[in-house]
Amino acid sequence: MPQVSLGEIVDKVGGRFDGPRDRVIRAVAPLGEATPDALSFLENPKYESLVRTTRAGAILVSSDLAGDDARWIRVDNPRLAFATVVAEWFSRRPMPIGISPQALVAPSARLGRNVAIGPFVRIGEEVEIGDNVSIFQGVSIEAGSAIGDETVIYPNVVIYDRTRIGKRCIIHGGVVIGGDGYGFTARAGRHHKLPQVGSVRIEDDVEIGSNTTIDRAALGETVIGEGTKIDNLVQIGHGVKIGKHCLLVAQVGIAGSTEVGNWVAIAGQSGLSEHLKIGDRAQIAAKSAVLADVPEGAKVMGSPAMPFRSFVRREAMLRRLVQKKGQPC
Amino acid sequence: MPQVSLGEIVDKVGGRFDGPRDRVIRAVAPLGEATPDALSFLENPKYESLVRTTRAGAILVSSDLAGDDARWIRVDNPRLAFATVVAEWFSRRPMPIGISPQALVAPSARLGRNVAIGPFVRIGEEVEIGDNVSIFQGVSIEAGSAIGDETVIYPNVVIYDRTRIGKRCIIHGGVVIGGDGYGFTARAGRHHKLPQVGSVRIEDDVEIGSNTTIDRAALGETVIGEGTKIDNLVQIGHGVKIGKHCLLVAQVGIAGSTEVGNWVAIAGQSGLSEHLKIGDRAQIAAKSAVLADVPEGAKVMGSPAMPFRSFVRREAMLRRLVQKKGQPC
Amino acid sequence: MPQVSLGEIVDKVGGRFDGPRDRVIRAVAPLGEATPDALSFLENPKYESLVRTTRAGAILVSSDLAGDDARWIRVDNPRLAFATVVAEWFSRRPMPIGISPQALVAPSARLGRNVAIGPFVRIGEEVEIGDNVSIFQGVSIEAGSAIGDETVIYPNVVIYDRTRIGKRCIIHGGVVIGGDGYGFTARAGRHHKLPQVGSVRIEDDVEIGSNTTIDRAALGETVIGEGTKIDNLVQIGHGVKIGKHCLLVAQVGIAGSTEVGNWVAIAGQSGLSEHLKIGDRAQIAAKSAVLADVPEGAKVMGSPAMPFRSFVRREAMLRRLVQKKGQPC
Repeated sequence: MPQVSLGEIVDKVGGRFDGPRDRVIRAVAPLGEATPDALSFLENPKYESLVRTTRAGAILVSSDLAGDDARWIRVDNPRLAFATVVAEWFSRRPMPIGISPQALVAPSARLGRNVAIGPFVRIGEEVEIGDNVSIFQGVSIEAGSAIGDETVIYPNVVIYDRTRIGKRCIIHGGVVIGGDGYGFTARAGRHHKLPQVGSVRIEDDVEIGSNTTIDRAALGETVIGEGTKIDNLVQIGHGVKIGKHCLLVAQVGIAGSTEVGNWVAIAGQSGLSEHLKIGDRAQIAAKSAVLADVPEGAKVMGSPAMPFRSFVRREAMLRRLVQKKGQPC
Repeated sequence: MPQVSLGEIVDKVGGRFDGPRDRVIRAVAPLGEATPDALSFLENPKYESLVRTTRAGAILVSSDLAGDDARWIRVDNPRLAFATVVAEWFSRRPMPIGISPQALVAPSARLGRNVAIGPFVRIGEEVEIGDNVSIFQGVSIEAGSAIGDETVIYPNVVIYDRTRIGKRCIIHGGVVIGGDGYGFTARAGRHHKLPQVGSVRIEDDVEIGSNTTIDRAALGETVIGEGTKIDNLVQIGHGVKIGKHCLLVAQVGIAGSTEVGNWVAIAGQSGLSEHLKIGDRAQIAAKSAVLADVPEGAKVMGSPAMPFRSFVRREAMLRRLVQKKGQPC
Repeated sequence: MPQVSLGEIVDKVGGRFDGPRDRVIRAVAPLGEATPDALSFLENPKYESLVRTTRAGAILVSSDLAGDDARWIRVDNPRLAFATVVAEWFSRRPMPIGISPQALVAPSARLGRNVAIGPFVRIGEEVEIGDNVSIFQGVSIEAGSAIGDETVIYPNVVIYDRTRIGKRCIIHGGVVIGGDGYGFTARAGRHHKLPQVGSVRIEDDVEIGSNTTIDRAALGETVIGEGTKIDNLVQIGHGVKIGKHCLLVAQVGIAGSTEVGNWVAIAGQSGLSEHLKIGDRAQIAAKSAVLADVPEGAKVMGSPAMPFRSFVRREAMLRRLVQKKGQPC
């Protein structure tokens, strides 16, 4: 069990704290469940009453929170400060250590320093693995792929040949990267496969949720930009380009060759059809069907997707019409 | 090939039967495909004509079915009686036997009696496995997790650290349990990961379909209640609480921290947004987008979801309006 | 790096070409990225300007393209000709070779000629594998299953017992075939599992995308017809029958016992409810919710799905009504 003093915590997150620096914290917990040896935090004002009743030993709160309490550590961003403390002392996860004798690493693969590879992993020919990479059991990395420094790959991930993954990425269990794109041409009463000979490139600091699939391009590359975070069960089609720092929530699907800008947010279960362009900072609401380009900064919603305001107006109108039994005049 | 007499079958399901008790049954089949050595059943009245033409050697029918036939076994619930017979004599599936020499079990793991573990399985440190548990090949169970008695885990399932799974659960191929929840905070032009240090708890008698993903909580627990049945490719976000005896059909997605009551049915491809409360016995129709709380017992449908009656009224009105070309008066 | 002369290429695809037959091609690329040693192609007329500016060494173009260029190879179907060239010379993917000593093949399994099996694969009792089959690492094939000649199975695929897969199929990473269908009956306050004792049969020339799930039938068979192509993360319920040469795009879900004809196209994220019949050559637009039978050749769209024309008319009417603020007269 980790233990850390409030003094160490305050030194780390840089907050203001007038309580006992030598008090020891052994856990992190939500306000409602915290015990006296736990650190908690208050972010959402609607939970403010909890901050008075909680048994937590210390609470990260906003600099400007009204009132006072010897247990409060005042910081600019309580959520981020809490995350920092958790990442430093309370998030130890058991990781693979060393290279398992049950892993199969091709002789021509090049491993960086301090690489950990679990059992039942297969690393193909000419694969390059950077420094401090951790690969859990059952992972398959096909020939010619490259994994950047400090990337973590959880169990049973499949990475097809010639995939390039950046530094500090996190790939969760069951993800499949680089499978063939969905490309066929019909002739003489059959669908003929169009060979998918492109590849996938994932930039630095990308996280990919469990069982997500990212297809290789037919030609050229499928790209996931730096810092983009992808949730579980998302589908990225062949040749899609996702910009930097995007958020793709669970079960989103993006069809082939669509280009998504930077800082775009796509909420859960939305679908984007093929060959579209989505501008920077666009926001796509949950379960939307995007069938046309979306301009920079636009918010869209609906199936088919329309500007957020149009959607709201349409909904209001429909509700009014139903009340009038469809006889508006 | 299994063989069982009609006498044994009747003794097992407790029905009324006046035919030959020593006749031997060797298979189970739908009415239309059954051969004279097969048992079949009639549930849906629309197939009643088949019960007269089928070649089945015996048929489980409802106690009050009009007519008579020496092959009929009359029971209260033909479907359930059929399931009982199938489970007893006709559902043998090849299972792992013993502990494979190709499995890797950490020295500190504790195994119950009669545990079967297939090859290429890795069981981490301090994992607890109950009695009569079957674990197929390629499964990964990370440190500190616990699996209850008689649970079956099919190939290539990934269970992250500190996950707790109850008794008599069935986890199908490719499921990922305990991956990090999707939590980030933006600062200085980047998304920063919020460590996900909670866990997942799955109660007794839960079944989870292939390639479904269940994320661990940021803090605290993600919970799947006793007797709940989850279909394939379902996404359960971090901190979600699902009650007891719920049905979640394929490709449903539930966003973080939403709480679902008991006996709730959520049809395929529906999505529930975050921090909602869904009351007991609520029913959510297929492909709904639930953006607000749903009261106990309510039926909702649509995107956004609305009461079932409102949805039907709206559809009727729209159909009428289109017929009138949008000029209702 | 492969190299092939333009003469060889023209002999293969049968086109008309007046340029230098001995010129060597070393790569394939899109028009915009091609270098002088690369072959490219023009299909979409909207990229016609690129065909004049590209640096490609040779370009497959349509027989009737206006103009002339010594680099052009004129063919009937440039996309198909390009695919043929790529498949012949530029699509070499590293494949498993021989039978890995780290694979576990049951003694009673029967392997055809020239079978390749990667490490950490388990082949169960009585499995039959045809000639020239390639099975990547981490695949699980349970007892009594059969795999036809020349089929390729990518890493970490799970095939439950008694599944039958045809010839020349391609099964991508993480696919799960033959898991239990979602069948329960409620009694005495609990859901009871209906044993799923049917199987799955996949005919010849089927391709299945990453992490797709196909459930076994409760009784009888789930069937995927010859030449059908299934994208990633698709869900096929128990007892579904898909006809020949269908296209099922990513994240589609088909509920139990629905029957889909031949040459049906189902676009991404659509859902079909159970016990439906979808006629030959029907087309279902993206994100539709199909709740009723669809006749042969019909095009449907929407949630709930309606004829394509009705959907368009409804949308037009709604747009008009919103502009008039819901006061159409």
